[in-house]
Amino acid sequence: MEFEFIEWIRRRQSSSPGMKIPIGDDAAWLRFEGGELLAAVDMLSDGVHFDLREHGPRRAGRKALAVNLSDVAAMAGTPRFALVALGLPRDGGLRLAQEIHEGMAELASEHGVVIAGGDTNSWDAPLAVSVTILATAPKNGPLRRDQAQAGDRILVTGSFGGSIRGRHLDFPPRVREAKLLHERYRLHAGMDVSDGLSVDLSRLAAESNLGAAVNLDRIPITDAARECAAEGTRSPLEHALGDGEDFELILAVPPEDAKRILADQPLDVPVTEIGEFTASGELTQIDSRGNQEPLIVRGYQHRFD
Amino acid sequence: MEFEFIEWIRRRQSSSPGMKIPIGDDAAWLRFEGGELLAAVDMLSDGVHFDLREHGPRRAGRKALAVNLSDVAAMAGTPRFALVALGLPRDGGLRLAQEIHEGMAELASEHGVVIAGGDTNSWDAPLAVSVTILATAPKNGPLRRDQAQAGDRILVTGSFGGSIRGRHLDFPPRVREAKLLHERYRLHAGMDVSDGLSVDLSRLAAESNLGAAVNLDRIPITDAARECAAEGTRSPLEHALGDGEDFELILAVPPEDAKRILADQPLDVPVTEIGEFTASGELTQIDSRGNQEPLIVRGYQHRFD
Repeated sequence: MEFEFIEWIRRRQSSSPGMKIPIGDDAAWLRFEGGELLAAVDMLSDGVHFDLREHGPRRAGRKALAVNLSDVAAMAGTPRFALVALGLPRDGGLRLAQEIHEGMAELASEHGVVIAGGDTNSWDAPLAVSVTILATAPKNGPLRRDQAQAGDRILVTGSFGGSIRGRHLDFPPRVREAKLLHERYRLHAGMDVSDGLSVDLSRLAAESNLGAAVNLDRIPITDAARECAAEGTRSPLEHALGDGEDFELILAVPPEDAKRILADQPLDVPVTEIGEFTASGELTQIDSRGNQEPLIVRGYQHRFD
Repeated sequence: MEFEFIEWIRRRQSSSPGMKIPIGDDAAWLRFEGGELLAAVDMLSDGVHFDLREHGPRRAGRKALAVNLSDVAAMAGTPRFALVALGLPRDGGLRLAQEIHEGMAELASEHGVVIAGGDTNSWDAPLAVSVTILATAPKNGPLRRDQAQAGDRILVTGSFGGSIRGRHLDFPPRVREAKLLHERYRLHAGMDVSDGLSVDLSRLAAESNLGAAVNLDRIPITDAARECAAEGTRSPLEHALGDGEDFELILAVPPEDAKRILADQPLDVPVTEIGEFTASGELTQIDSRGNQEPLIVRGYQHRFD
């Protein structure tokens, strides 16, 4: 436990009625409404998830919290507490830690999240930021990946592709959006898109033992994806299907509720139907002429040697 | 989220009645008895907290979990779930991750802790292991640092110094010991000794707005501290007072309960009285002849540039 930094955080963070942190104690002492919680951890590092020199510590800190908030959004939970562990390069570590924290603090406050504890270390290595998020589960149970049903419509929030042009750092995690939809409508399954629309859709389908048919001409494409396409060899659609770090939601919604969501458009961001889940077990893509072929699954694949 | 590794963990861990982890979901879905929990995070890295080449990944993994268990012991909590984030060197990462996990798994199982989630990344840097521990608080409230009272006896478990000779890797976190004492006796305050007996005692006293008088001839000294002294310039006592990573407990216990604990010796490890907390605000050390002078506070001091 690193006192200077933790004290520094504690002095700055607003007090929360749901939390007690006896200063200097060894673990954060947290109070939840219920006996159930969601917990996720993500570790980000300089040179992999951000470029510290180019993006600066505030955006790096913001992203480290935001990817965790997106994991909570994927289950329609309410984020409550974050624990932050930092591995700091030896020079200028304290200043760096403070700026990282400032980058997190604004997003944390926007989502009612309290940074409840942490650990800081100096090392001879690039900056590493590990954030653990603790969240309460929704009353009607967390949104899961394995409950989609054949005939469910595939709905997505926002648009896809080209996040490398900045959005991978500054994206808004869809916490409120997921909660609102999960409260007001029947959602069978869902997740956030972190590795790419096509690969994450394939995972959602696989975990529900289903196939999916995607209408390519309905996929919402970002301007950034078009800009990437103009400068490279892949089409805007290929960027939308294959680029990672969109951090939008994919949802499996029964037809009646899908219809209502699309008519209501209850979010600040558009919700679009891009296809449906099928009993076939196949993943197919359908082009504007109605031609059907196997979906090309692209995205970030996690591999180790 | 890294599927291969998380799947690998999930296949290996025993199921727990208190836990549901829908496979592939974005956050672990955890059920606690009550609405209160303790949460702590520690990040350890190669070259700082262990030497991967010398100690191997299993001992590194074990230590990463053990230091977190010690944080829970410091508050007399019951550890339940751990989330593990790994930063892996690019070569041989998967094998390394598996061995780290195996080193954790044995200790986790011994303490009934379920490794409920995690994240793995490859990077061009030394191994980093960040463990978040979630624990239930004791029914009579967590053991804290700020509740010691003047006249409380200073009790410690085990003996001190020279952990560098191996114990800093293989120490048993005092989880069961802290729970047993907190359940059966009145403890006013306590913490684990991670940075050195004298510095951590000074922190416990400071957070309770007290002083402390330590009887130097009562401090339990390890054989390892004597071995270090034989090879270096500091005495065994100096090692016991100043070396870090003992991971024993310091407790502030009212005199009657201290007497009972010392008579009962209810733990597998000896409990020793080394002094008492005082209203003076001063930290003093008393030698075998009764000479009193200011306590020399040594230990690991966390500093950043």
